[in-house]
Amino acid sequence: MARTTGSDGEKTEAAIREAALGLIARLGFEAMSMRQLAASVGVQPAALYRYFTTKEALLHALMLEHMERLIASWGEARPAHGSDKEKPAGRLAKFVENHIRFHLARRNATHVSNLELRSLSSERLEQILALRSQYEGELRSILTDGQREGVFQIDDVALTAMAIIQMITGVIVWFRPELRLSEDEVAANYHTMTMRLVGAEA
Amino acid sequence: MARTTGSDGEKTEAAIREAALGLIARLGFEAMSMRQLAASVGVQPAALYRYFTTKEALLHALMLEHMERLIASWGEARPAHGSDKEKPAGRLAKFVENHIRFHLARRNATHVSNLELRSLSSERLEQILALRSQYEGELRSILTDGQREGVFQIDDVALTAMAIIQMITGVIVWFRPELRLSEDEVAANYHTMTMRLVGAEA
Repeated sequence: MARTTGSDGEKTEAAIREAALGLIARLGFEAMSMRQLAASVGVQPAALYRYFTTKEALLHALMLEHMERLIASWGEARPAHGSDKEKPAGRLAKFVENHIRFHLARRNATHVSNLELRSLSSERLEQILALRSQYEGELRSILTDGQREGVFQIDDVALTAMAIIQMITGVIVWFRPELRLSEDEVAANYHTMTMRLVGAEA
Repeated sequence: MARTTGSDGEKTEAAIREAALGLIARLGFEAMSMRQLAASVGVQPAALYRYFTTKEALLHALMLEHMERLIASWGEARPAHGSDKEKPAGRLAKFVENHIRFHLARRNATHVSNLELRSLSSERLEQILALRSQYEGELRSILTDGQREGVFQIDDVALTAMAIIQMITGVIVWFRPELRLSEDEVAANYHTMTMRLVGAEA
């Protein structure tokens, strides 16, 4: 029998995740109660535990989904092998654009992933940090390639990767859709700044 | 009569502030109880309220002190009028160095200031954000001067200021004193990256 996608159970779980991201981003993980979350989804508190055995398991599931989707989005966005855009400058441009668009579309999940790491148990924390490291490794390999080919001027690849990640993730702290710049303009600006940062020709 | 500095009351208040920064950075503001804080300082819970009328007033006091010290530290570090270092490149170099050293020396306060804004009431939040804006205005004016004098290549001053602030504050997320790079090396690297980012000659 084919797997039933979009079953009631899956819809409820998706609704719980969405509501939890909103509540945690607004109140903080410690301040949110499972009772509050149940009320905002419109289910009994006991129903939550069918999907997530503990409040921390819920937090972990949210962060895991966020990182897996981020890695998958880069897998889809990265320039194809053999294309002209596969060169370091083209890959870096795509990485910055994908990173900014992904995070702007998922502000609550980004806030939760950035602010609530301290509430994970050490085993779960390690798993999330390993996924981050895997993702950041993609950026480091772009920088290393560009450095080796002589198209980027980089003193320290690891430090530069961290600087770029912090700079482009920081967009979600201040970006508001109603401000003077569109998402496209912001992405284009950050692309230019990133290229300058690595000493590449624009 | 001269003001008694270092009185018992002042020492107790300083101990409360220090302990609160450590506990909030580790547990989160919502998760920390005043009872826990009192125990870690070695006073009765009621004694805390002699210094801070509410838990939120304590958080606000910590953030206010952090921002006031940051602004004061830049006031002391900024190159003197008429000196050669007062040129935009010299001021930018000093701003980046001072910002990184200030925050690395105050990791707990930096975490608290960056992660717990949502727990402030709107009036107190506005005050803290106004101080941030005042501080960031110093950076914007350096960038504007450099742009006008033709020594920086900047498309958007406000966006570039945010990018630099996010990039250099991000250091405290990953920097550990035991890692391969010293604080001096990290500050020097970030200085180089910032200069590239604004298109200045190194």
